[in-house]
Amino acid sequence: MPTKPALHEPVPYRVADLALAEAGRHQIRLAEHEMPGLMALRAEFGASKPLRGARIAGSLHMTVQTAVLIETLVALGAQVRWASCNIFSTQDDAAAAIVVGSGSVEQPAGVPVFAWKGETLEEYWWCTERIFDWSAEAEAAGADWVGPNMILDDGGDATILVHKGLEFEKAGAVPQATDADSREWRVVLDTLRASLEANPARWQAVAPGIRGVTEETTTGVHRLYELFKSGELLFPAINVNDSVTKSKFDNKYGIRHSLPDGLNRATDVLIGGKVALVAGYGDVGKGAAEALRGQGARVIVTEIDPINALQAAMDGYQVARIESVLDTIDIFVTGTGNQNVVTVDHILGMKHQAVVANVGHFDDEIDMAGLETLAGAERVEIKPQVHEWRLPNGRSVLVLSEGRLMNLGNATGHPSFVMSNSFTNQVLAQIELFGTDYPLSVHVLPKVLDEKVARLHLDALGVELTTLSPEQAAYIGVPVEGPYKPDHYRY
Amino acid sequence: MPTKPALHEPVPYRVADLALAEAGRHQIRLAEHEMPGLMALRAEFGASKPLRGARIAGSLHMTVQTAVLIETLVALGAQVRWASCNIFSTQDDAAAAIVVGSGSVEQPAGVPVFAWKGETLEEYWWCTERIFDWSAEAEAAGADWVGPNMILDDGGDATILVHKGLEFEKAGAVPQATDADSREWRVVLDTLRASLEANPARWQAVAPGIRGVTEETTTGVHRLYELFKSGELLFPAINVNDSVTKSKFDNKYGIRHSLPDGLNRATDVLIGGKVALVAGYGDVGKGAAEALRGQGARVIVTEIDPINALQAAMDGYQVARIESVLDTIDIFVTGTGNQNVVTVDHILGMKHQAVVANVGHFDDEIDMAGLETLAGAERVEIKPQVHEWRLPNGRSVLVLSEGRLMNLGNATGHPSFVMSNSFTNQVLAQIELFGTDYPLSVHVLPKVLDEKVARLHLDALGVELTTLSPEQAAYIGVPVEGPYKPDHYRY
Amino acid sequence: MPTKPALHEPVPYRVADLALAEAGRHQIRLAEHEMPGLMALRAEFGASKPLRGARIAGSLHMTVQTAVLIETLVALGAQVRWASCNIFSTQDDAAAAIVVGSGSVEQPAGVPVFAWKGETLEEYWWCTERIFDWSAEAEAAGADWVGPNMILDDGGDATILVHKGLEFEKAGAVPQATDADSREWRVVLDTLRASLEANPARWQAVAPGIRGVTEETTTGVHRLYELFKSGELLFPAINVNDSVTKSKFDNKYGIRHSLPDGLNRATDVLIGGKVALVAGYGDVGKGAAEALRGQGARVIVTEIDPINALQAAMDGYQVARIESVLDTIDIFVTGTGNQNVVTVDHILGMKHQAVVANVGHFDDEIDMAGLETLAGAERVEIKPQVHEWRLPNGRSVLVLSEGRLMNLGNATGHPSFVMSNSFTNQVLAQIELFGTDYPLSVHVLPKVLDEKVARLHLDALGVELTTLSPEQAAYIGVPVEGPYKPDHYRY
Amino acid sequence: MPTKPALHEPVPYRVADLALAEAGRHQIRLAEHEMPGLMALRAEFGASKPLRGARIAGSLHMTVQTAVLIETLVALGAQVRWASCNIFSTQDDAAAAIVVGSGSVEQPAGVPVFAWKGETLEEYWWCTERIFDWSAEAEAAGADWVGPNMILDDGGDATILVHKGLEFEKAGAVPQATDADSREWRVVLDTLRASLEANPARWQAVAPGIRGVTEETTTGVHRLYELFKSGELLFPAINVNDSVTKSKFDNKYGIRHSLPDGLNRATDVLIGGKVALVAGYGDVGKGAAEALRGQGARVIVTEIDPINALQAAMDGYQVARIESVLDTIDIFVTGTGNQNVVTVDHILGMKHQAVVANVGHFDDEIDMAGLETLAGAERVEIKPQVHEWRLPNGRSVLVLSEGRLMNLGNATGHPSFVMSNSFTNQVLAQIELFGTDYPLSVHVLPKVLDEKVARLHLDALGVELTTLSPEQAAYIGVPVEGPYKPDHYRY
Repeated sequence: MPTKPALHEPVPYRVADLALAEAGRHQIRLAEHEMPGLMALRAEFGASKPLRGARIAGSLHMTVQTAVLIETLVALGAQVRWASCNIFSTQDDAAAAIVVGSGSVEQPAGVPVFAWKGETLEEYWWCTERIFDWSAEAEAAGADWVGPNMILDDGGDATILVHKGLEFEKAGAVPQATDADSREWRVVLDTLRASLEANPARWQAVAPGIRGVTEETTTGVHRLYELFKSGELLFPAINVNDSVTKSKFDNKYGIRHSLPDGLNRATDVLIGGKVALVAGYGDVGKGAAEALRGQGARVIVTEIDPINALQAAMDGYQVARIESVLDTIDIFVTGTGNQNVVTVDHILGMKHQAVVANVGHFDDEIDMAGLETLAGAERVEIKPQVHEWRLPNGRSVLVLSEGRLMNLGNATGHPSFVMSNSFTNQVLAQIELFGTDYPLSVHVLPKVLDEKVARLHLDALGVELTTLSPEQAAYIGVPVEGPYKPDHYRY
Repeated sequence: MPTKPALHEPVPYRVADLALAEAGRHQIRLAEHEMPGLMALRAEFGASKPLRGARIAGSLHMTVQTAVLIETLVALGAQVRWASCNIFSTQDDAAAAIVVGSGSVEQPAGVPVFAWKGETLEEYWWCTERIFDWSAEAEAAGADWVGPNMILDDGGDATILVHKGLEFEKAGAVPQATDADSREWRVVLDTLRASLEANPARWQAVAPGIRGVTEETTTGVHRLYELFKSGELLFPAINVNDSVTKSKFDNKYGIRHSLPDGLNRATDVLIGGKVALVAGYGDVGKGAAEALRGQGARVIVTEIDPINALQAAMDGYQVARIESVLDTIDIFVTGTGNQNVVTVDHILGMKHQAVVANVGHFDDEIDMAGLETLAGAERVEIKPQVHEWRLPNGRSVLVLSEGRLMNLGNATGHPSFVMSNSFTNQVLAQIELFGTDYPLSVHVLPKVLDEKVARLHLDALGVELTTLSPEQAAYIGVPVEGPYKPDHYRY
Repeated sequence: MPTKPALHEPVPYRVADLALAEAGRHQIRLAEHEMPGLMALRAEFGASKPLRGARIAGSLHMTVQTAVLIETLVALGAQVRWASCNIFSTQDDAAAAIVVGSGSVEQPAGVPVFAWKGETLEEYWWCTERIFDWSAEAEAAGADWVGPNMILDDGGDATILVHKGLEFEKAGAVPQATDADSREWRVVLDTLRASLEANPARWQAVAPGIRGVTEETTTGVHRLYELFKSGELLFPAINVNDSVTKSKFDNKYGIRHSLPDGLNRATDVLIGGKVALVAGYGDVGKGAAEALRGQGARVIVTEIDPINALQAAMDGYQVARIESVLDTIDIFVTGTGNQNVVTVDHILGMKHQAVVANVGHFDDEIDMAGLETLAGAERVEIKPQVHEWRLPNGRSVLVLSEGRLMNLGNATGHPSFVMSNSFTNQVLAQIELFGTDYPLSVHVLPKVLDEKVARLHLDALGVELTTLSPEQAAYIGVPVEGPYKPDHYRY
Repeated sequence: MPTKPALHEPVPYRVADLALAEAGRHQIRLAEHEMPGLMALRAEFGASKPLRGARIAGSLHMTVQTAVLIETLVALGAQVRWASCNIFSTQDDAAAAIVVGSGSVEQPAGVPVFAWKGETLEEYWWCTERIFDWSAEAEAAGADWVGPNMILDDGGDATILVHKGLEFEKAGAVPQATDADSREWRVVLDTLRASLEANPARWQAVAPGIRGVTEETTTGVHRLYELFKSGELLFPAINVNDSVTKSKFDNKYGIRHSLPDGLNRATDVLIGGKVALVAGYGDVGKGAAEALRGQGARVIVTEIDPINALQAAMDGYQVARIESVLDTIDIFVTGTGNQNVVTVDHILGMKHQAVVANVGHFDDEIDMAGLETLAGAERVEIKPQVHEWRLPNGRSVLVLSEGRLMNLGNATGHPSFVMSNSFTNQVLAQIELFGTDYPLSVHVLPKVLDEKVARLHLDALGVELTTLSPEQAAYIGVPVEGPYKPDHYRY
């Protein structure tokens, strides 16, 4: 891990160890084979370079798959700076390889990355701030000032930094944190306070240049809709999360793969025969439940939405309140996007050595803050990202990734093929937003592009697609080449 | 089966045999236990009778489940006349019980039903016409004329009769059939021609009285959207099909149940170990594939939509064109809503004794018309709704229900619990349309009613729903009591 | 149903209605395609006729599949007489077709069958006795007396009749029934008492002529081992049940198919979303649980054997005592081979309209005798083989097939393909026992014949078998052509 | 990794790094919770110490789970020396913790272990030899000579060393290797040649002292039966592998867990949507196929045994010859126990970047020897135990763990709970063999002990076992307390 950098010091990049670049390059090369959508976009747009002129500030888990995304953006003409959107999710070898690029460890020639596995919160927000500082690029271009014109975001941290930075600059001050503020929010305030001191016009320079943001996840999209509803949204957004080929693939099939992967790397608990609780039966929960059942676990689902609850029951799962089954559960998995789904009281009622894991979004799905302040609780590190919490009642539980996304913290996140779907949507969304004047709103990609993303992934799976005859297309009233479904279709 | 009735002769009802009423009543009584949504509506609205004054012309498979629907509509205050929407789908005992009602075989006191298993096309359209003839009710009320004011439709046949009847009356003539017209369309034209001759102002009296239609299926909804787009729609419609608790339940879980049921009653072919082709991976196809896999079949899917194709692949199914796998398939199942999905050429390439079954919508998913005119083909009835077609190539195939919906023709359709979801939507939609002035358009039920339908079915399955805390609800920005999801959410 | 025949009156056959023969022949013809093992034996042995001279007394469910078995035995040279081994399991059309054979309804030329759906217990044992009365064959052959020389048995009723008949003849009297005797045992005693009166040397003539018996099921095999252990066994037996291709196929995959078939025909209860209890996790229970889960039910297993219980848990099922979960269960399925698995007390604790079904062996898995004498209980026939039992506590339960095998009583038993495996074992066992002098014991078929049975069913499923190279065969120490596994291998 | 030790130099232990002991102890402590069978034996036999006096030479993967086994043997009174049975399978932290025991890194007080991850073949056989050298124990006891009296073996390497050592000593010479001998066999010969030179009476001293061996796996058991058949077996053996609670649990449920674990750690290939080939449908293959299907892969099975092939088909898998489907497969998994199941010709026909993995037993399931000598092939290490083989045809494949057991090499082997079943059998078998005079043969554990192993694992899974009533036990002819099944029962 690097020495903690002085905040706001301009550095060209910050990763764990450039010497890992070769190992990262091996992984990236193998991943390219598993990401046919991105490679197809390189083939289709590599010559026309529709992202020429785009300067993308990217904030998204700095994994091997993201490396293929970054190099696809570059292949399409963009300049890119990158940070991770999670303190644990960076794969250090991939980050190194992206920095080195076609250069060498001595003379890196790649993309500036600011990310390493195991950042502190201060480091995390420093990294996020770095992707908006294009002074090196300005210098290289001989320009007084250059700013990013696009954001590629996951969870909305980059977007929120711009919005809050601008707000506080206009107000002339960053508000003091209150007791109710989370530890992370205090760090954000500190980061922006330092920014305001260093340059009181910085975000006023950055914000107007942004043509738009493409957002990866449910949580980030939710924030964008809130901003739009309250009239605060500064630039148009494309909601990548709600492309079918994102939400119904990344969320479901990605979790199906990476949840057991994370569980297996973190513990040697046999999943088969165990009782697992999956909180939430959205796409994430559906993938989690299928994965655990596929390994022979008995899965109990919790839900607040009667429709999803009925789906879970019809799929053969018991649906119960967590309190009703607490002492029968061996493995807890949260995937709701809500907070305090697992409370300290729940934890105190769990079986000895129950495993507690989050694949939702933020670490507050599990009340980690409450656990950290619980009198008599002791935290023993079994290995990085695996902690035994010894409870005052004499039992202990195993908490993975400190309550953060364990499929990223304990494993390597979603596999390349799933991410190829999501990231092909991202690249198409960047092309759309950069090349077209979208009105100020939160948009989804047109269905024909969603279908295109799917189409680019069929050959790799040996899928033969049937073609409608003109008569059949006319009969159901769609073009032979699609799109095939009304917008409200649910897949 | 009754003597073919003289068309347009007013009769109080027409079913196979009133003596079956007691057997039907047993089934209805058991079904009520499996239809908690409808029974809950009787409890909630039985006193206030929000359908008092509604005169409903219903066209929907006259099964045991529909019987519970009809009696729920009556319990909520409606007057009802009923026909089936499929020539094979009537359960004669249920039809008899509905006619008898609280009366006796000698003195029926129930709802006028015009339906029996095995109608001819002429009989079918005669029955459909009967539900618009409320002269008996007029007479009972001492009125000159009474017409229906609501339609409850499945597939749109009742709706189309009103629209075409009015159109031809206004034109003053029914057009001659052309060579391209289907046999069924010729029967519709004949029916309306006779109607025009008998009463040239009939549909002009009926149409303006209709407050709206609630439509059950994909096909009927598709027709409604076409009518609306072309400006021909005469009254507002509620698209019940696209309630989540209909399309994602009836279509998927209903087929999962009734497809193997139909296969098992029709043939003694072991599903396990066989290779089955499922055409279409929409909700119907998903349910079909899951059912067949659950019985140990190897399932191959055909799809025209790349997104659905990718879903099928990610769910572990081979996706191929029918031509590529024709000679390996033991069981063909169509569920596309399109036509000529299985052609005569396909049939000629099938294995000996392959089973051909349709659970989509119309019988033209399989080219039955082509098969019927194939030189050298011979049709041998094994038992009702199961025919061996001996082909000129020396092989034979088994066609179920003459290519029509085999889950209705060979089995008894979707089970009560699934239909309780669909029909609770229907009743809520009837209440909405009858009690509220909806603009002329095709509507879906508000999400809060969709969630209500789900909620009414949870107790029966022992589901415990979790309740959001106010803090959690605020955190994700929804009311504690729902609705919980944005409209674009896909479940 | 035929008039109840006078017991011991010689009649050439007794079935429900010969006019059903054509319908039966259609079914048999289709079934032959699904029974490749039997058809392969006809091809292999049809010329050499290894069963020439065999006179087989057969007692096995008189279904379409058994019809193909019977005609295979005849094709291999045997003479056959047949009864069913269950009062409800006969398919009357198949029975008629077997009697008619290549003749006509007026001049039947087939095999004498004594079986119809819905026999009384008296009729049942009369039928069983008929298969030992070869006086018609003696007359045709111009012989004083002819007896059977082989038994093909299912459940051991034919075998027990010979053993008890002989025992009582030697004792000179049939014992009086005691209060502890079941109703069925009283009928057996009555049957043998009448036999003793009519001909006091009958079983002494029959028994010595029997070369052996081939037994189909667990229960019958259990009886044979008991007879052998106690020194009472009169002739060698082959335990067909424990061929892998019987017990691990018929019991598991047969039930997987026929359990939901029976449930669906009997009731319209949606299996999906329901909670089902499967008593016993042997092969029958494994198949039952898989079928119910495949339909979306949540399955709870009861077990007495810790190994099977652990298997069930590892396969993802909850394992509980029936008392612990009684009031959460919608569907009860017994498959243990034991008695009183579901008691009257259990029934009184069940949910309203719970379904109670047995796929084990005898009707005493469910305490039907206790239910029949329960004060205040009332039995309402919903339809044949489906009875609502109204309980004194105000609730009711649905009992299928009066507690007997519901996959036979409510459906048509195991499908042909499964039975082809079992019956190919039966035919090979008959050839072995008839052609070879086996010592007095209970034998299983040699593994090489078991593998042969499997081999004869692979082509129909499109299976490509891999062939060992001589080097590979030597490496694992088996012949290239098999057998491949040690006798203790568990599959 | 330690310096290569001089062969035959007496050292007290040899592991990678004692400093890993604390990390190992954490893992062992957590694993104890997942190994209820072993912990129950400690509770039951910790006081009586039935293994007092036993000196066990153990050769079995030196993992965390084995650590719990070793400490259980010690708790029951045994002295133990240990080696791994696979060059890659040692978990270095577990090995260190076992050596340290209740002592410290400076003063280890545990069991002598000779094992580290990544041994050479020479080192491997040196380690194996070490477990037979009890000179340190002799010295501590003040004895001239002490030898082991029990072997606990996995794969038979320890057993074979004794048999061959004795054979060559008696012959007075170790034979020269021939061209046909494998590289590993040459190392064995070299090892024994050195032994003979150092001490020509060593194995003659060791062999007579061995009371017996308990063998863990199919391969080792096969060797034992061969030795017994040829009259060469020197001491009685218990075949632990064929306990139901071993073969049907470890082989099936262990692989179900550890195969995807190994695949996920080795590559980022999404399993969902891919086509996987599983060679062999024994218990290992069944577990592998279930795991891959549970992750959404489409699985094709290869089999040589028609019964297993039919099972695979009935379970819904395509069964094909590898040659027929070679170019459609993304992931190859071998689990046959045979050699050359995947040949170099197969590898040359594979898709680019196909994954090749073995979970059978030896590395010759895949023809690694042939691949290593293939002209033009190049081996690129992606990371330890993951190699890209670039083929002369321009494609490459990914070979895991150099063709050895990838669930051990790429992951951490079977999880504790599964191993608790296997190892509880091992401990019971050691108690049996050490405490009872078994005749010279290969035995299996009595069924009552097999059931006991299962019973000890039920509570941890929340299983409620049903108890037979005396009447029920009598009805099926078993004791109330078991055993419940005949020996031929297949589970």
